[in-house]
Amino acid sequence: MHMYIGVDLGGTNIAAGVVDEKGTLLASDSVPTGRERGTDAIVHDMALLCSRVAEQAGCSMNDIRTVGVGSPGTIDHANGMVVYSNNIIMDHVPLAQKLEEQLHLPVNLENDANAAAYGEYTACGVQADSFVFMTLGTGVGGGIILNGQIYRGFNGAGAEIGHMTLVHNGKLCTCGKRGCLEAYASATALIEQTKEKMAQCPDSLMCAWAAKHGGADGRTAFDCASEGDRAAMEVREQYISYVADGAASIINIFQPEMLVIGGGISKAGEALLEPLRRKAAQLDYNKYLSRTKIMTAKLYNDAGIVGAAMAAKNRMEE
Amino acid sequence: MHMYIGVDLGGTNIAAGVVDEKGTLLASDSVPTGRERGTDAIVHDMALLCSRVAEQAGCSMNDIRTVGVGSPGTIDHANGMVVYSNNIIMDHVPLAQKLEEQLHLPVNLENDANAAAYGEYTACGVQADSFVFMTLGTGVGGGIILNGQIYRGFNGAGAEIGHMTLVHNGKLCTCGKRGCLEAYASATALIEQTKEKMAQCPDSLMCAWAAKHGGADGRTAFDCASEGDRAAMEVREQYISYVADGAASIINIFQPEMLVIGGGISKAGEALLEPLRRKAAQLDYNKYLSRTKIMTAKLYNDAGIVGAAMAAKNRMEE
Repeated sequence: MHMYIGVDLGGTNIAAGVVDEKGTLLASDSVPTGRERGTDAIVHDMALLCSRVAEQAGCSMNDIRTVGVGSPGTIDHANGMVVYSNNIIMDHVPLAQKLEEQLHLPVNLENDANAAAYGEYTACGVQADSFVFMTLGTGVGGGIILNGQIYRGFNGAGAEIGHMTLVHNGKLCTCGKRGCLEAYASATALIEQTKEKMAQCPDSLMCAWAAKHGGADGRTAFDCASEGDRAAMEVREQYISYVADGAASIINIFQPEMLVIGGGISKAGEALLEPLRRKAAQLDYNKYLSRTKIMTAKLYNDAGIVGAAMAAKNRMEE
Repeated sequence: MHMYIGVDLGGTNIAAGVVDEKGTLLASDSVPTGRERGTDAIVHDMALLCSRVAEQAGCSMNDIRTVGVGSPGTIDHANGMVVYSNNIIMDHVPLAQKLEEQLHLPVNLENDANAAAYGEYTACGVQADSFVFMTLGTGVGGGIILNGQIYRGFNGAGAEIGHMTLVHNGKLCTCGKRGCLEAYASATALIEQTKEKMAQCPDSLMCAWAAKHGGADGRTAFDCASEGDRAAMEVREQYISYVADGAASIINIFQPEMLVIGGGISKAGEALLEPLRRKAAQLDYNKYLSRTKIMTAKLYNDAGIVGAAMAAKNRMEE
C-alpha cells in the first residue's frame, strides 16, 4: 500500500504524519518550529520529522509516494513557493523545492487553510461535489473544495472567506479592512464579546468562570450559557447570529453540499450547530431545493496533516 | 456553420436570438410575455419566436443544433424544470421538455442570471479560469463561471451573490433576509438613496434633474455628480462604496480572473469603474499577487440570449 506524508507548518510547531491511501492517519509527531531560525533550519527539521513519522508508522521513506506541506501565507501552488508569510517570515521562498532536495521525493505545497479544508473534505466520507470549510479560530479561515479539487482562484489567493464583509464600515479587522466576518465570528472576537459582556454584568457566571480558569477564553460564554447564565446566553446567541449570517452568505453564493465548521469553537458541538442550522436556514435564499448540510469538523488539529498529504496524493494522480 | 438559438424569458418580454459558434448574435427579436396567460401559451410563443429569429438570421430550423432558455426562478438544470418562479408563476414546470415538443430540438434550461453571466463570459473574449458577473439592476444578480462551466452549487440554486450579507441586521431585502448586498447596491437601492438625499437637499441639481425627467431614476445621481453637484457626488460615492465592499467580498472569496459588472448602472462606465477599482483594491486581502480585472458588461440586454444559446452549445459538447 502506498503511503503519504503531510506536514502542517505552523508558527509554533511543525506537525507531520503518515496517512494511507484513504487518508487514515497512521502516525504523527511534532517539533517546535523555532521560526526565528530562518527557512533552511526549518526545512531541515521538516525533513527529519518526515523520516521520524515514517519510522513511527512502520515504513521507510521508500514507501512514501509524495509529501504535502501546508504553510501559512500567500502560496504560489503551481511553483511550490511561499510568496509571502508574516507568521514565519518568508518572502518568495521555494519551500517545496527545498524540501524535495532534502527528501528526494515530490513535494506539493498548499496554503495551510486549504490543506485543512482538504483534510476535512477527505474525512467527511462523502464525495461532496461542493464543500466549504470555515474555521472559527484565532481568525476565520477556510477552504473551498469543488469537484474534489481545492479552489484557489486565478492567482492562488482565493477562499479567504474570513475576509468577506459582514458589517459594512464595521470593526477594523487585522487585515486592515473594516467589518470582515473574522472581526465578528473568530474565537478572538468571541473572547472580546465575552469580556465586554462581563464588564457590563459583573454578577454573570462568566466572571466566576474566568476567575477560576485564569481568564476568559473561547469556551467561557458557551460553558456558562449551558449552565443557564443569562448574560452568557446573550453572548452565545449574538455570536452564533454572526456565524450564521456569514454561513448564509457562503450558502447563498455556493449552495455547497456540505459546510463544515472547524476551529476550537466547533468543539461546542450541538450547542453551536443546532442554533446555527436554524438561523442559517432562515437566511438561506433557497426555499425549494435541498439544503446544505452543516456539520462540525472531524479531524481538528490533524486536518492540516491529512489534507496536505491527500492534496499531494491528488496532485500526483492528476 | 452550426447555429444556436437563445431565449431570454422575462416577466415583460420574451427575447430570442440566433448566434453562431463564437456567440456572435446574428438576429434577435422579442414578443410580450403575457405572463398571465399561463405556461403553455408562453411556450407556444417562444417556439414561434425561435422560428422567426431563425428566418431573420437567414437560416432554417434545420440549421439550429440546440436551443437554450434562460428563465427566472429556481431552476433544476439537469431536468430542465422551473422548480418555482414567482415572476412568471411557474411551479415544477418542465419548460425544456415543453419547448422540445414544439421545436423537435434539444433544449437546455438555465437560470436567467446564470445565462446572462455565461453570455458575458463568452463576450469577454478571454477564457478566464474564474469569472464572476454581478448585475446592478432591479436586484443584484449574478453568475459564476469556473473553468468555462456555470457554477450552480449542488442543488442548482447557487450564485445568489446579491443575497450575501453586506450589513449584519441591516435593511430588509425583498428576499426576507436583512442586510443583503441587493438592498444597498441594486439600482432600486440607488434610487432610494438618491431620493433620500433629494429630500435632505432640495437645492440639489438632482431635484431639478428629476423634475425635468419625470422623477429620479438610476441615472440621476451619476448624471448630476458628473455636473459637480455636491449632494449627487455624495450619493454616488456612498453607493460605489457599497458596490466595492460587495465586490471585495467576491474577490476575497473567489479571486476571480475577471469580475464583470452589468445592469443599467454599469452604463456609467468609468464614473463607476475608476472609483470601484480603487476602492476594491484597498479592500482586497491579496496584496502580493495579480489582481482581479474589474470590467463593465459588453452585451447588456443581449447577454441572456447569447448566454442561453452558448450554454446550450456547451452542454451539447460535454
